[in-house]
Amino acid sequence: MSPTGRRRGTPGTRGAILRVARRHFASRGYEATSLRTIAGAAKVDPALVIHYFGSKEGLFAGAMDLPPRLLETFDEMASLPVGEAVELLVRRYLEVVDSDRSRNAVLALVRSAVSNETAATMLREFLSAGMLRSLEGRTQRPDAERRAALVAAQLVGIAVLRHVLRVGAVASATRDDLVALVAPVVVQYLEGPGDGCRSGP
Amino acid sequence: MSPTGRRRGTPGTRGAILRVARRHFASRGYEATSLRTIAGAAKVDPALVIHYFGSKEGLFAGAMDLPPRLLETFDEMASLPVGEAVELLVRRYLEVVDSDRSRNAVLALVRSAVSNETAATMLREFLSAGMLRSLEGRTQRPDAERRAALVAAQLVGIAVLRHVLRVGAVASATRDDLVALVAPVVVQYLEGPGDGCRSGP
Repeated sequence: MSPTGRRRGTPGTRGAILRVARRHFASRGYEATSLRTIAGAAKVDPALVIHYFGSKEGLFAGAMDLPPRLLETFDEMASLPVGEAVELLVRRYLEVVDSDRSRNAVLALVRSAVSNETAATMLREFLSAGMLRSLEGRTQRPDAERRAALVAAQLVGIAVLRHVLRVGAVASATRDDLVALVAPVVVQYLEGPGDGCRSGP
Repeated sequence: MSPTGRRRGTPGTRGAILRVARRHFASRGYEATSLRTIAGAAKVDPALVIHYFGSKEGLFAGAMDLPPRLLETFDEMASLPVGEAVELLVRRYLEVVDSDRSRNAVLALVRSAVSNETAATMLREFLSAGMLRSLEGRTQRPDAERRAALVAAQLVGIAVLRHVLRVGAVASATRDDLVALVAPVVVQYLEGPGDGCRSGP
Protein backbone atom coordinates (compact mmCIF):
# COMPACT_ATOMS: atom_id res chain seq x y z
CA MET A 1 0.00 0.00 0.00
CA SER A 2 1.14 3.55 -0.74
CA PRO A 3 0.62 6.41 1.75
CA THR A 4 -2.79 7.11 0.13
CA GLY A 5 -3.98 3.58 0.91
CA ARG A 6 -3.95 2.70 -2.75
CA ARG A 7 -2.21 -0.39 -4.03
CA ARG A 8 0.73 0.10 -6.36
CA GLY A 9 1.12 -2.33 -9.25
CA THR A 10 2.28 -5.74 -8.02
CA PRO A 11 2.08 -9.07 -9.82
CA GLY A 12 -1.37 -9.70 -8.34
CA THR A 13 -2.78 -6.23 -8.97
CA ARG A 14 -3.80 -6.74 -12.55
CA GLY A 15 -5.79 -9.85 -11.65
CA ALA A 16 -7.39 -8.07 -8.70
CA ILE A 17 -8.52 -5.20 -10.95
CA LEU A 18 -9.99 -7.69 -13.43
CA ARG A 19 -11.94 -9.48 -10.71
CA VAL A 20 -13.42 -6.21 -9.47
CA ALA A 21 -14.17 -5.13 -13.05
CA ARG A 22 -16.01 -8.37 -13.83
CA ARG A 23 -18.14 -7.97 -10.73
CA HIS A 24 -19.00 -4.34 -11.48
CA PHE A 25 -19.67 -4.75 -15.20
CA ALA A 26 -21.88 -7.73 -14.48
CA SER A 27 -23.87 -6.21 -11.62
CA ARG A 28 -24.28 -2.65 -12.95
CA GLY A 29 -23.71 -2.99 -16.65
CA TYR A 30 -21.10 -1.45 -18.89
CA GLU A 31 -22.57 2.04 -19.21
CA ALA A 32 -23.10 2.65 -15.51
CA THR A 33 -19.63 1.45 -14.53
CA SER A 34 -16.74 3.93 -14.71
CA LEU A 35 -13.06 3.16 -14.77
CA ARG A 36 -12.74 5.38 -11.72
CA THR A 37 -15.32 3.35 -9.77
CA ILE A 38 -13.46 0.14 -10.53
CA ALA A 39 -10.13 1.70 -9.52
CA GLY A 40 -11.73 2.85 -6.26
CA ALA A 41 -13.23 -0.56 -5.49
CA ALA A 42 -9.90 -2.23 -6.30
CA LYS A 43 -8.09 0.37 -4.17
CA VAL A 44 -5.71 1.41 -6.96
CA ASP A 45 -5.03 4.69 -8.73
CA PRO A 46 -7.11 5.11 -11.94
CA ALA A 47 -3.81 5.85 -13.71
CA LEU A 48 -2.70 2.31 -12.91
CA VAL A 49 -5.85 0.92 -14.55
CA ILE A 50 -5.09 3.03 -17.63
CA HIS A 51 -1.50 1.82 -17.51
CA TYR A 52 -2.63 -1.81 -17.59
CA PHE A 53 -5.66 -1.62 -19.89
CA GLY A 54 -5.51 1.66 -21.82
CA SER A 55 -9.20 2.54 -21.53
CA LYS A 56 -12.53 1.40 -20.12
CA GLU A 57 -13.08 -0.61 -23.32
CA GLY A 58 -9.69 -2.26 -22.86
CA LEU A 59 -10.51 -3.07 -19.24
CA PHE A 60 -13.79 -4.58 -20.34
CA ALA A 61 -12.03 -6.67 -22.99
CA GLY A 62 -9.56 -7.80 -20.31
CA ALA A 63 -12.43 -8.70 -17.96
CA MET A 64 -13.98 -10.72 -20.80
CA ASP A 65 -10.55 -12.22 -21.65
CA LEU A 66 -11.00 -10.97 -25.21
CA PRO A 67 -8.06 -10.14 -27.45
CA PRO A 68 -7.51 -6.36 -27.75
CA ARG A 69 -7.50 -6.85 -31.52
CA LEU A 70 -11.26 -7.38 -31.57
CA LEU A 71 -11.77 -3.92 -30.10
CA GLU A 72 -9.38 -2.38 -32.63
CA THR A 73 -11.58 -3.92 -35.31
CA PHE A 74 -14.46 -1.67 -34.34
CA ASP A 75 -12.22 1.37 -34.88
CA GLU A 76 -10.83 0.11 -38.17
CA MET A 77 -14.32 -0.54 -39.49
CA ALA A 78 -15.27 3.11 -39.17
CA SER A 79 -13.06 4.13 -42.11
CA LEU A 80 -14.11 1.35 -44.52
CA PRO A 81 -17.04 1.01 -46.96
CA VAL A 82 -19.78 -1.16 -45.48
CA GLY A 83 -18.96 -4.34 -47.46
CA GLU A 84 -15.29 -4.30 -46.47
CA ALA A 85 -16.10 -3.30 -42.89
CA VAL A 86 -18.45 -6.24 -42.53
CA GLU A 87 -15.96 -8.70 -44.04
CA LEU A 88 -13.33 -7.45 -41.57
CA LEU A 89 -15.73 -7.86 -38.66
CA VAL A 90 -16.73 -11.41 -39.61
CA ARG A 91 -13.12 -12.44 -40.24
CA ARG A 92 -11.79 -11.03 -36.96
CA TYR A 93 -14.69 -12.55 -35.05
CA LEU A 94 -13.93 -15.97 -36.54
CA GLU A 95 -10.21 -15.54 -35.76
CA VAL A 96 -11.17 -14.92 -32.13
CA VAL A 97 -13.53 -17.86 -31.74
CA ASP A 98 -11.11 -20.13 -33.64
CA SER A 99 -7.99 -19.31 -31.61
CA ASP A 100 -7.42 -21.79 -28.80
CA ARG A 101 -7.09 -19.24 -26.04
CA SER A 102 -9.99 -17.00 -27.04
CA ARG A 103 -12.22 -19.86 -28.03
CA ASN A 104 -11.98 -21.31 -24.55
CA ALA A 105 -12.79 -17.94 -23.01
CA VAL A 106 -15.73 -17.37 -25.35
CA LEU A 107 -17.09 -20.89 -24.86
CA ALA A 108 -16.69 -20.64 -21.10
CA LEU A 109 -18.66 -17.42 -21.28
CA VAL A 110 -21.41 -18.96 -23.42
CA ARG A 111 -21.54 -21.98 -21.08
CA SER A 112 -21.82 -19.68 -18.08
CA ALA A 113 -24.29 -17.37 -19.80
CA VAL A 114 -26.90 -20.06 -20.29
CA SER A 115 -26.97 -20.97 -16.60
CA ASN A 116 -25.69 -17.91 -14.81
CA GLU A 117 -27.20 -14.44 -14.83
CA THR A 118 -23.86 -12.70 -14.19
CA ALA A 119 -22.22 -14.24 -17.22
CA ALA A 120 -25.33 -13.59 -19.31
CA THR A 121 -25.13 -9.92 -18.35
CA MET A 122 -21.44 -9.76 -19.23
CA LEU A 123 -22.07 -11.22 -22.65
CA ARG A 124 -25.07 -8.96 -23.24
CA GLU A 125 -22.99 -5.95 -22.24
CA PHE A 126 -20.20 -7.01 -24.57
CA LEU A 127 -22.60 -7.33 -27.48
CA SER A 128 -24.18 -3.97 -26.66
CA ALA A 129 -20.96 -2.15 -25.90
CA GLY A 130 -18.91 -3.31 -28.83
CA MET A 131 -20.58 -5.03 -31.68
CA LEU A 132 -24.03 -3.50 -31.53
CA ARG A 133 -22.81 0.06 -31.24
CA SER A 134 -20.33 -0.45 -34.03
CA LEU A 135 -22.97 -1.88 -36.35
CA GLU A 136 -25.78 0.48 -35.44
CA GLY A 137 -23.76 3.33 -36.90
CA ARG A 138 -23.71 1.43 -40.18
CA THR A 139 -27.41 1.65 -40.91
CA GLN A 140 -29.78 4.59 -41.12
CA ARG A 141 -32.84 2.40 -40.53
CA PRO A 142 -35.07 3.24 -37.56
CA ASP A 143 -34.75 -0.36 -36.35
CA ALA A 144 -30.94 -0.19 -36.40
CA GLU A 145 -30.60 -1.65 -32.93
CA ARG A 146 -32.67 -4.70 -33.84
CA ARG A 147 -30.73 -5.22 -37.07
CA ALA A 148 -27.41 -5.02 -35.23
CA ALA A 149 -28.66 -7.43 -32.57
CA LEU A 150 -29.65 -9.95 -35.25
CA VAL A 151 -26.13 -9.74 -36.69
CA ALA A 152 -24.83 -10.48 -33.19
CA ALA A 153 -27.27 -13.42 -33.00
CA GLN A 154 -25.88 -14.74 -36.28
CA LEU A 155 -22.30 -14.53 -35.02
CA VAL A 156 -23.12 -16.10 -31.64
CA GLY A 157 -24.97 -18.91 -33.45
CA ILE A 158 -21.97 -19.58 -35.69
CA ALA A 159 -19.71 -19.95 -32.64
CA VAL A 160 -22.21 -22.39 -31.12
CA LEU A 161 -22.54 -24.54 -34.27
CA ARG A 162 -18.79 -24.40 -35.04
CA HIS A 163 -17.35 -25.09 -31.61
CA VAL A 164 -20.09 -26.36 -29.27
CA LEU A 165 -22.40 -28.47 -31.43
CA ARG A 166 -19.70 -28.99 -34.08
CA VAL A 167 -22.17 -29.25 -36.94
CA GLY A 168 -19.98 -30.57 -39.75
CA ALA A 169 -20.70 -28.04 -42.47
CA VAL A 170 -19.89 -25.08 -40.20
CA ALA A 171 -17.22 -26.78 -38.08
CA SER A 172 -15.13 -27.87 -41.06
CA ALA A 173 -15.53 -24.70 -43.17
CA THR A 174 -12.53 -22.44 -43.64
CA ARG A 175 -12.80 -18.86 -42.43
CA ASP A 176 -12.75 -17.72 -46.07
CA ASP A 177 -15.74 -19.97 -46.84
CA LEU A 178 -17.68 -18.53 -43.94
CA VAL A 179 -16.77 -14.91 -44.63
CA ALA A 180 -17.92 -15.33 -48.25
CA LEU A 181 -21.38 -16.49 -47.15
CA VAL A 182 -21.89 -14.56 -43.92
CA ALA A 183 -20.66 -11.08 -44.90
CA PRO A 184 -23.36 -10.50 -47.58
CA VAL A 185 -26.00 -11.58 -45.06
CA VAL A 186 -24.72 -9.03 -42.55
CA VAL A 187 -24.90 -6.34 -45.23
CA GLN A 188 -28.46 -7.47 -46.00
CA TYR A 189 -29.31 -7.08 -42.29
CA LEU A 190 -27.86 -3.59 -42.21
CA GLU A 191 -29.19 -2.31 -45.53
CA GLY A 192 -32.06 -4.58 -46.64
CA PRO A 193 -35.65 -3.34 -46.69
CA GLY A 194 -36.70 -5.53 -43.75
CA ASP A 195 -40.24 -6.11 -44.98
CA GLY A 196 -40.02 -9.84 -45.42
CA CYS A 197 -39.85 -11.70 -48.71
CA ARG A 198 -42.97 -10.20 -50.32
CA SER A 199 -40.98 -7.51 -52.10
CA GLY A 200 -38.76 -10.07 -53.81
CA PRO A 201 -39.36 -11.68 -57.21
CA MET B 1 -45.82 -58.55 -20.67
CA SER B 2 -47.47 -60.28 -23.62
CA PRO B 3 -46.63 -63.88 -24.55
CA THR B 4 -43.86 -62.58 -26.85
CA GLY B 5 -42.14 -60.87 -23.92
CA ARG B 6 -43.02 -57.44 -25.29
CA ARG B 7 -44.67 -54.81 -23.18
CA ARG B 8 -48.16 -53.67 -24.14
CA GLY B 9 -48.97 -49.97 -23.82
CA THR B 10 -49.31 -48.94 -20.18
CA PRO B 11 -49.20 -45.46 -18.69
CA GLY B 12 -45.41 -45.72 -18.26
CA THR B 13 -44.67 -47.21 -21.67
CA ARG B 14 -44.59 -43.98 -23.65
CA GLY B 15 -42.05 -42.48 -21.25
CA ALA B 16 -39.95 -45.65 -21.31
CA ILE B 17 -39.85 -45.57 -25.13
CA LEU B 18 -38.78 -41.91 -25.05
CA ARG B 19 -35.96 -42.61 -22.61
CA VAL B 20 -34.65 -45.42 -24.80
CA ALA B 21 -35.02 -43.24 -27.90
CA ARG B 22 -33.06 -40.38 -26.34
CA ARG B 23 -30.24 -42.73 -25.42
CA HIS B 24 -30.08 -44.31 -28.87
CA PHE B 25 -30.39 -41.10 -30.90
CA ALA B 26 -27.71 -39.48 -28.76
CA SER B 27 -25.24 -42.36 -28.80
CA ARG B 28 -25.64 -43.51 -32.42
CA GLY B 29 -27.14 -40.52 -34.17
CA TYR B 30 -30.43 -40.11 -35.95
CA GLU B 31 -29.55 -41.86 -39.20
CA ALA B 32 -28.12 -45.02 -37.67
CA THR B 33 -31.02 -45.51 -35.27
CA SER B 34 -34.14 -47.28 -36.53
CA LEU B 35 -37.58 -47.23 -34.99
CA ARG B 36 -37.35 -51.04 -34.85
CA THR B 37 -34.10 -50.91 -32.83
CA ILE B 38 -35.68 -48.58 -30.32
CA ALA B 39 -38.78 -50.75 -30.04
CA GLY B 40 -36.54 -53.77 -29.46
CA ALA B 41 -34.47 -52.04 -26.79
CA ALA B 42 -37.65 -50.83 -25.10
CA LYS B 43 -39.16 -54.34 -25.40
CA VAL B 44 -42.31 -53.16 -27.17
CA ASP B 45 -43.84 -53.92 -30.56
CA PRO B 46 -42.75 -51.45 -33.28
CA ALA B 47 -46.48 -50.96 -34.01
CA LEU B 48 -46.88 -49.52 -30.54
CA VAL B 49 -44.14 -46.97 -31.23
CA ILE B 50 -45.94 -46.02 -34.46
CA HIS B 51 -49.19 -45.82 -32.50
CA TYR B 52 -47.68 -43.35 -30.04
CA PHE B 53 -45.41 -41.29 -32.31
CA GLY B 54 -46.50 -41.85 -35.92
CA SER B 55 -42.99 -42.15 -37.39
CA LYS B 56 -39.29 -42.08 -36.57
CA GLU B 57 -39.37 -38.29 -37.04
CA GLY B 58 -42.27 -38.06 -34.60
CA LEU B 59 -40.42 -40.23 -32.10
CA PHE B 60 -37.39 -38.00 -32.44
CA ALA B 61 -39.52 -34.88 -31.91
CA GLY B 62 -41.00 -36.56 -28.83
CA ALA B 63 -37.53 -37.43 -27.52
CA MET B 64 -36.55 -33.78 -28.03
CA ASP B 65 -39.83 -32.62 -26.46
CA LEU B 66 -40.53 -30.63 -29.63
CA PRO B 67 -44.04 -29.80 -30.79
CA PRO B 68 -45.15 -32.04 -33.70
CA ARG B 69 -46.12 -28.84 -35.53
CA LEU B 70 -42.48 -27.99 -36.15
CA LEU B 71 -42.03 -31.22 -38.07
CA GLU B 72 -45.20 -30.59 -40.08
CA THR B 73 -43.62 -27.28 -41.08
CA PHE B 74 -40.90 -29.07 -43.00
CA ASP B 75 -43.57 -30.89 -45.03
CA GLU B 76 -45.65 -27.76 -45.63
CA MET B 77 -42.58 -25.88 -46.83
CA ALA B 78 -42.07 -28.30 -49.70
CA SER B 79 -45.11 -27.00 -51.60
CA LEU B 80 -44.39 -23.26 -51.19
CA PRO B 81 -42.22 -20.82 -53.16
CA VAL B 82 -38.93 -20.19 -51.37
CA GLY B 83 -39.85 -16.78 -49.89
CA GLU B 84 -43.07 -18.05 -48.33
CA ALA B 85 -41.47 -21.30 -47.23
CA VAL B 86 -38.75 -19.41 -45.41
CA GLU B 87 -41.22 -17.03 -43.74
CA LEU B 88 -43.22 -20.04 -42.53
CA LEU B 89 -40.08 -21.70 -41.15
CA VAL B 90 -38.92 -18.59 -39.27
CA ARG B 91 -42.41 -17.93 -37.89
CA ARG B 92 -42.97 -21.51 -36.67
CA TYR B 93 -39.49 -21.61 -35.17
CA LEU B 94 -40.18 -18.40 -33.22
CA GLU B 95 -43.56 -19.77 -32.08
CA VAL B 96 -41.74 -22.80 -30.70
CA VAL B 97 -39.01 -20.93 -28.86
CA ASP B 98 -41.54 -18.36 -27.59
CA SER B 99 -44.05 -20.85 -26.18
CA ASP B 100 -43.50 -21.51 -22.48
CA ARG B 101 -43.40 -25.27 -22.72
CA SER B 102 -41.24 -25.55 -25.81
CA ARG B 103 -38.99 -22.69 -24.82
CA ASN B 104 -38.08 -24.47 -21.61
CA ALA B 105 -37.34 -27.67 -23.49
CA VAL B 106 -35.25 -25.85 -26.10
CA LEU B 107 -33.35 -23.83 -23.50
CA ALA B 108 -32.75 -26.90 -21.35
CA LEU B 109 -31.34 -28.56 -24.44
CA VAL B 110 -29.09 -25.58 -25.28
CA ARG B 111 -27.94 -25.46 -21.65
CA SER B 112 -27.15 -29.14 -21.72
CA ALA B 113 -25.58 -28.98 -25.15
CA VAL B 114 -22.87 -26.55 -24.10
CA SER B 115 -21.68 -28.78 -21.26
CA ASN B 116 -22.81 -32.26 -22.21
CA GLU B 117 -21.82 -34.25 -25.26
CA THR B 118 -25.06 -36.28 -25.32
CA ALA B 119 -27.26 -33.19 -25.49
CA ALA B 120 -24.94 -31.60 -28.04
CA THR B 121 -25.33 -34.69 -30.21
CA MET B 122 -29.13 -34.60 -29.85
CA LEU B 123 -29.26 -30.97 -30.91
CA ARG B 124 -26.86 -31.55 -33.78
CA GLU B 125 -28.96 -34.51 -34.94
CA PHE B 126 -32.11 -32.40 -34.74
CA LEU B 127 -30.57 -29.68 -36.86
CA SER B 128 -29.28 -32.22 -39.36
CA ALA B 129 -32.39 -34.37 -39.46
CA GLY B 130 -34.98 -31.64 -39.76
CA MET B 131 -33.92 -28.16 -40.54
CA LEU B 132 -30.78 -28.80 -42.52
CA ARG B 133 -32.33 -31.44 -44.77
CA SER B 134 -35.40 -29.30 -45.34
CA LEU B 135 -33.32 -26.28 -46.32
CA GLU B 136 -30.68 -28.11 -48.33
CA GLY B 137 -33.39 -29.07 -50.82
CA ARG B 138 -34.07 -25.37 -51.29
CA THR B 139 -30.78 -24.49 -52.89
CA GLN B 140 -28.96 -25.89 -55.91
CA ARG B 141 -25.60 -24.55 -54.70
CA PRO B 142 -22.76 -27.03 -54.20
CA ASP B 143 -22.26 -25.71 -50.67
CA ALA B 144 -25.95 -26.28 -49.80
CA GLU B 145 -25.14 -28.06 -46.55
CA ARG B 146 -23.02 -25.16 -45.32
CA ARG B 147 -25.68 -22.63 -46.29
CA ALA B 148 -28.38 -24.59 -44.47
CA ALA B 149 -26.16 -24.92 -41.39
CA LEU B 150 -25.60 -21.15 -41.33
CA VAL B 151 -29.39 -20.65 -41.37
CA ALA B 152 -29.60 -23.01 -38.40
CA ALA B 153 -26.83 -20.98 -36.71
CA GLN B 154 -28.88 -17.83 -37.26
CA LEU B 155 -31.97 -19.39 -35.69
CA VAL B 156 -30.06 -20.86 -32.74
CA GLY B 157 -28.43 -17.46 -32.17
CA ILE B 158 -31.81 -15.72 -32.16
CA ALA B 159 -33.09 -18.11 -29.47
CA VAL B 160 -29.97 -17.41 -27.39
CA LEU B 161 -30.23 -13.59 -27.68
CA ARG B 162 -34.02 -13.57 -27.24
CA HIS B 163 -34.39 -15.95 -24.31
CA VAL B 164 -30.97 -16.58 -22.71
CA LEU B 165 -29.08 -13.29 -22.97
CA ARG B 166 -32.30 -11.29 -23.41
CA VAL B 167 -30.68 -8.62 -25.57
CA GLY B 168 -33.37 -5.93 -25.63
CA ALA B 169 -33.74 -5.36 -29.34
CA VAL B 170 -34.28 -9.07 -30.05
CA ALA B 171 -36.04 -9.96 -26.78
CA SER B 172 -38.71 -7.27 -27.15
CA ALA B 173 -39.29 -7.61 -30.91
CA THR B 174 -42.58 -9.08 -32.10
CA ARG B 175 -42.46 -12.23 -34.19
CA ASP B 176 -43.64 -10.18 -37.18
CA ASP B 177 -40.71 -7.79 -36.73
CA LEU B 178 -38.26 -10.66 -36.65
CA VAL B 179 -39.79 -12.55 -39.57
CA ALA B 180 -39.62 -9.37 -41.68
CA LEU B 181 -35.87 -9.02 -41.09
CA VAL B 182 -34.77 -12.63 -40.80
CA ALA B 183 -36.65 -14.26 -43.71
CA PRO B 184 -34.89 -12.22 -46.45
CA VAL B 185 -31.55 -13.11 -44.86
CA VAL B 186 -32.41 -16.81 -44.98
CA VAL B 187 -33.32 -16.45 -48.66
CA GLN B 188 -29.98 -14.69 -49.20
CA TYR B 189 -28.22 -17.64 -47.56
CA LEU B 190 -30.03 -20.12 -49.79
CA GLU B 191 -29.82 -18.21 -53.06
CA GLY B 192 -27.10 -15.55 -52.76
CA PRO B 193 -23.85 -15.83 -54.70
CA GLY B 194 -21.76 -16.56 -51.59
CA ASP B 195 -18.64 -14.81 -52.83
CA GLY B 196 -18.46 -12.14 -50.19
CA CYS B 197 -19.29 -8.48 -50.64
CA ARG B 198 -16.97 -7.80 -53.59
CA SER B 199 -19.71 -8.41 -56.13
CA GLY B 200 -21.95 -5.74 -54.58
CA PRO B 201 -22.09 -2.06 -55.50
